[in-house]
Amino acid sequence: MRVFSREISFNTRGEIDIIDITGEVEKIVRESGVKNGIATVFIPGATGAITTIEYEPGLIEDFKDALRRLIPREIRYRHPVNGHSHVRASLLGPSVTVPIIGGHLHLGTWQQIVFIELDTRPRHRRVIVQIVGE
Amino acid sequence: MRVFSREISFNTRGEIDIIDITGEVEKIVRESGVKNGIATVFIPGATGAITTIEYEPGLIEDFKDALRRLIPREIRYRHPVNGHSHVRASLLGPSVTVPIIGGHLHLGTWQQIVFIELDTRPRHRRVIVQIVGE
Amino acid sequence: MRVFSREISFNTRGEIDIIDITGEVEKIVRESGVKNGIATVFIPGATGAITTIEYEPGLIEDFKDALRRLIPREIRYRHPVNGHSHVRASLLGPSVTVPIIGGHLHLGTWQQIVFIELDTRPRHRRVIVQIVGE
Repeated sequence: MRVFSREISFNTRGEIDIIDITGEVEKIVRESGVKNGIATVFIPGATGAITTIEYEPGLIEDFKDALRRLIPREIRYRHPVNGHSHVRASLLGPSVTVPIIGGHLHLGTWQQIVFIELDTRPRHRRVIVQIVGE
Repeated sequence: MRVFSREISFNTRGEIDIIDITGEVEKIVRESGVKNGIATVFIPGATGAITTIEYEPGLIEDFKDALRRLIPREIRYRHPVNGHSHVRASLLGPSVTVPIIGGHLHLGTWQQIVFIELDTRPRHRRVIVQIVGE
Repeated sequence: MRVFSREISFNTRGEIDIIDITGEVEKIVRESGVKNGIATVFIPGATGAITTIEYEPGLIEDFKDALRRLIPREIRYRHPVNGHSHVRASLLGPSVTVPIIGGHLHLGTWQQIVFIELDTRPRHRRVIVQIVGE
């Protein structure tokens, strides 16, 4: 049993940018040598989120539309500038934990791990991949 | 410390079917022999979700109503057929992680672990239970 | 590798009370002696939720407003008295898992771990912090 910790870093293009990080997480799983365990993918930051989705261009736009409809940018927020970014991030959550089986992420065929940039401007992001297993 | 991995499989009845899997997850915890640790319950698939809820028939219908209201089926999606299923799944998330203490899931008295079928048709589903502990 | 388990207990002031528990979770991480691993923060109960947010008073009110708008209290629920509390809790989820790196929670600078009381009355709450690591 061991813990293996790596960072994925990239630039985002601003609100709402959805980035497929599955390939990089899978690479870290292979590098770890862990055959069975779990991978926690976590964004240290209050205006980003992690979830899974089928990374199909039409669906990505559908998901953005849903976020804009559920937590509109145009209504009044007490928090200045990016209140809607924070509310969206807290609703979606900062992490996802995925089983590792046979040395691979045990995702569905059409299921990708994504980082969602919710801030109003382009950002440099560092996502943590924390693997616990054997 | 060890990793113990099992699958729960079942058929769903289509959109929106909410299935209480607590008993089966608890059985896997017992089978694992793990006394203290965590259990990650994960759906490998982009049109299902895992959460916890009090499994009371009225409340189950209330939760379905809320999903239909928040992410309606009737509006336009770019993704064909089941765009709303995917958006609902990504909003709710594919997993929950529950502490194991004294050889049992440490849930609240009225708190059950559920799989939520969000796809538009009946499916055969395999939910992963990944236990890490000692 | 080890598992370290502690409870944080406190009283809430009723619907919707958002409580910053980051300091207490960090204290438990230090007490555990774990340098690298994960901390799962979990509410055993069906009317509370855990997420992360920037704990800024204006934003806390913005988040409450969003919950009231998304899952209103005033509409009809089959579940008596606190149907909306349960639906809000199941939507937000009962837990968050945070990486531990270098003996500390690896949170963003403006990111706190919060318990959200969704029930309609003040409650005594016990949140579980389950640490797995080395």
